[in-house]
Amino acid sequence: MSTDIDFYFDFVSPYAYLASTRIERLAAAHGRKVRWKPVLMTVLSKAAGTQLTPFVPMKWQYVQQDLERSARLAGIPFRLPPGFPKLLLAPGRAMTWLAASHGEDTAAAFARTCFTAYFSDGVDINDHEVLAGIASGMGVARAPLLAALEDEAVKAAFRQASEDAIAQGVFGVPFMIVDGESFWGFDRLDQLALVMKQPAPQVGVDGGD
Amino acid sequence: MSTDIDFYFDFVSPYAYLASTRIERLAAAHGRKVRWKPVLMTVLSKAAGTQLTPFVPMKWQYVQQDLERSARLAGIPFRLPPGFPKLLLAPGRAMTWLAASHGEDTAAAFARTCFTAYFSDGVDINDHEVLAGIASGMGVARAPLLAALEDEAVKAAFRQASEDAIAQGVFGVPFMIVDGESFWGFDRLDQLALVMKQPAPQVGVDGGD
Repeated sequence: MSTDIDFYFDFVSPYAYLASTRIERLAAAHGRKVRWKPVLMTVLSKAAGTQLTPFVPMKWQYVQQDLERSARLAGIPFRLPPGFPKLLLAPGRAMTWLAASHGEDTAAAFARTCFTAYFSDGVDINDHEVLAGIASGMGVARAPLLAALEDEAVKAAFRQASEDAIAQGVFGVPFMIVDGESFWGFDRLDQLALVMKQPAPQVGVDGGD
Repeated sequence: MSTDIDFYFDFVSPYAYLASTRIERLAAAHGRKVRWKPVLMTVLSKAAGTQLTPFVPMKWQYVQQDLERSARLAGIPFRLPPGFPKLLLAPGRAMTWLAASHGEDTAAAFARTCFTAYFSDGVDINDHEVLAGIASGMGVARAPLLAALEDEAVKAAFRQASEDAIAQGVFGVPFMIVDGESFWGFDRLDQLALVMKQPAPQVGVDGGD
């Protein structure tokens, strides 16, 4: 069993953004590594038979207040981007290619920058030139990234990532799996920290201090 | 504007049960009173266009783990009752009558006892004799309570309670409204406490220390 934290997210999820600002520090404090796994909420919600919150008016009315409050109490800059929500395919595809071509650490840094650009500064991270600019700032050449965004193999790999997540029981984001245990939501990072500190008792295994 | 905490719940909601064990202590610590407001999730979810979690398999699979973990980490006894979930009309009707006939404090104590009986001990709190027994232990005569459970006016008043909740934007439980601000979920009690301690700055109002 992996000791990493699998961190499933969609770039369009505000709660995933909030979690993205905390997950690396949390993992490091417990000697874990984060595996950043971009997926598409539209694919997850179809498979699970759930609704996307912005399309449930009474819930969305509340959630907008909750997001503002959750961000404020956590001290995280946040505002809903213009035109929210929209289907964001490009950053997930870019990250998929970056992970394969430049390594997971570069891809994760790219993801964090995209999240902040979108939810703190209102930048359109579905725009290919914007993504090329972000990658360029990290030393990644623009041309191969722009080509990757049109590459059918990259598109297929990103599509497959959502299917793989569904197979792990992921139905929403942010979703964290560690030591086989699942945690859903920015508001479960505290429980994730508690469980990593005090793992559930194992039957038939002697525990040491 | 009321300074009370309006606490909306359905007796069938496990997260509302968890909140029911904490809400009075939390309110008292901030000099507030709790107004216990039983509603029906089936009515709320129909109005809001949401789904009841136990009928969304992937989500329910996760939520069962989350409930066990949330209860364990909070130190609250919990197990899913036999035959869960079921439509619980009787305890809400009983409480509606108790509040009118014996006062809100008696009704609230009855609600807390019902919650514990259901989610800690697996007692069938839809059974009229069970409810009469719980009320009897609080000094309420059995016969008028049993009669109230068949009273059309009581039934109508309990139905109306869900409509009144919907008018306040309530789409799920537990749902707390205090000083005009809404909080949804057992996992928002911490934010509720923080906001009561440090109210959001009011424009044009001088704040004192």
